[in-house]
Amino acid sequence: MLTSTANPRVKRIIKLNKKAAARTAEQVFVIEGIKLFMEAPEQLIKEVYITQSIYTKYISEQNFSDPQQELVNAKLLRINYEIVSDDVFARMSDTQTPQGLLCVVRQRHFDLNGLPFAGNSLYLVLEDIQDPGNLGTIFRTAEAAGVEAVIMSRGCADIYNPKTIRATMGSVFRVGFAYVDDLLFTLEALKAQDIELYAACLDNSEYYDKLDYRRGTAFLIGSEGHGLKEETKKTAKNLKIPMGGQVESLNAATATAILLFEAARQRRT
Amino acid sequence: MLTSTANPRVKRIIKLNKKAAARTAEQVFVIEGIKLFMEAPEQLIKEVYITQSIYTKYISEQNFSDPQQELVNAKLLRINYEIVSDDVFARMSDTQTPQGLLCVVRQRHFDLNGLPFAGNSLYLVLEDIQDPGNLGTIFRTAEAAGVEAVIMSRGCADIYNPKTIRATMGSVFRVGFAYVDDLLFTLEALKAQDIELYAACLDNSEYYDKLDYRRGTAFLIGSEGHGLKEETKKTAKNLKIPMGGQVESLNAATATAILLFEAARQRRT
Repeated sequence: MLTSTANPRVKRIIKLNKKAAARTAEQVFVIEGIKLFMEAPEQLIKEVYITQSIYTKYISEQNFSDPQQELVNAKLLRINYEIVSDDVFARMSDTQTPQGLLCVVRQRHFDLNGLPFAGNSLYLVLEDIQDPGNLGTIFRTAEAAGVEAVIMSRGCADIYNPKTIRATMGSVFRVGFAYVDDLLFTLEALKAQDIELYAACLDNSEYYDKLDYRRGTAFLIGSEGHGLKEETKKTAKNLKIPMGGQVESLNAATATAILLFEAARQRRT
Repeated sequence: MLTSTANPRVKRIIKLNKKAAARTAEQVFVIEGIKLFMEAPEQLIKEVYITQSIYTKYISEQNFSDPQQELVNAKLLRINYEIVSDDVFARMSDTQTPQGLLCVVRQRHFDLNGLPFAGNSLYLVLEDIQDPGNLGTIFRTAEAAGVEAVIMSRGCADIYNPKTIRATMGSVFRVGFAYVDDLLFTLEALKAQDIELYAACLDNSEYYDKLDYRRGTAFLIGSEGHGLKEETKKTAKNLKIPMGGQVESLNAATATAILLFEAARQRRT
């Protein structure tokens, strides 16, 4: 049982939560809570840390009142777990109200060639999305809308940031993604695969709902503060979401949702 | 010039940022940054606090390089402002990187009868939306989609929370809203005005894009964790947003955006 906050392993977890460089160096990230633990593929989970109360509820308990408890129990028993004291856990946790279970998980990496490029699939291309919560929400929305893969410029937030991971609600384990160094090069490669590019803009471009997204489609979404770069817009058909009132722009995750679900709607009809 | 963090006026601003009760008692809230200052109706602004560098840039400067600077200058000169030292400002500010301008603004209150109830308008009803950022994003989206008014249960976050205000991007000054004590009563009142109610659900209800929102329409959105209450759902036509992958639900602000922009799309065609 880990009981000292001075323990180097405790310090390591804090660092993995706080520093992208530490996560990259070890090629791991940290997830918290029962829900994400259950969604994480077993072969990716390296270490599990639990509090005494989680131990009591999911391991030492003999009569499980609900089936979910049994599933958690079985998964915990198949993986090595370590018990930590409540105060140590509070230090390791990235959240204000720790849930008592935390795992170190191996990072997934895809190269572009490893991503599925089916003829009429839906893709999302993110340029410099900075807000970790926005990025996570976008992943959650992308999975729901049937996106095959998310392609991100290096300027995007780290998908393995704890805030991002929480906001994905598990989609990080299910949606393919890749960071690319040269976004323009990648966009040309998408076009070569007969995927139509659509850039979300704010200027006098066409209304998003007048275009047809039933073929291979990639939506390009720019950063919260500045939108897409001019050179990126030039690679794509420009579209805009008409806005009433005095709204100058939509939140990036909001705009993404509107476009992806318009594509999903068209594809259903 | 305010130079002491021990000054009671400094402590008051900190309290106004942190405590909804303090905001309610004084019937004011705090906004930060040039953008929100410019969007705030002048008659609502009670006090303005600026740093020396804002003073230099917008007041003592004689040659304004851009027209925005001139507008800010004019508005500041019409309102009483007080200069505060940088360290005092940092204490007063709710943000990590303070922008050097902060105002105390009068709260707006609408009663339901004061809200516009046009025959075919679009309304949004929020039940217990807890996340301040989500609530603000929803306001921003609602203005863009042409929502007439947002009706909130008392269980919703405080619209005047600084995080919420930031996320509204100024929509808080332009969208009508009301908190109501008895949501079911209000929903019946909406129905009596011939407004159709649509409840966002996760169960086997109709797909949202198969319904017609061109008449008076109110979307009902439930809390992030639990969705709408059963008794609330019963007052309305139930709909769902179809989701692919293993996504169990969408972020509340995301779901709101998809529904509101489907309504806006239908109303354009």
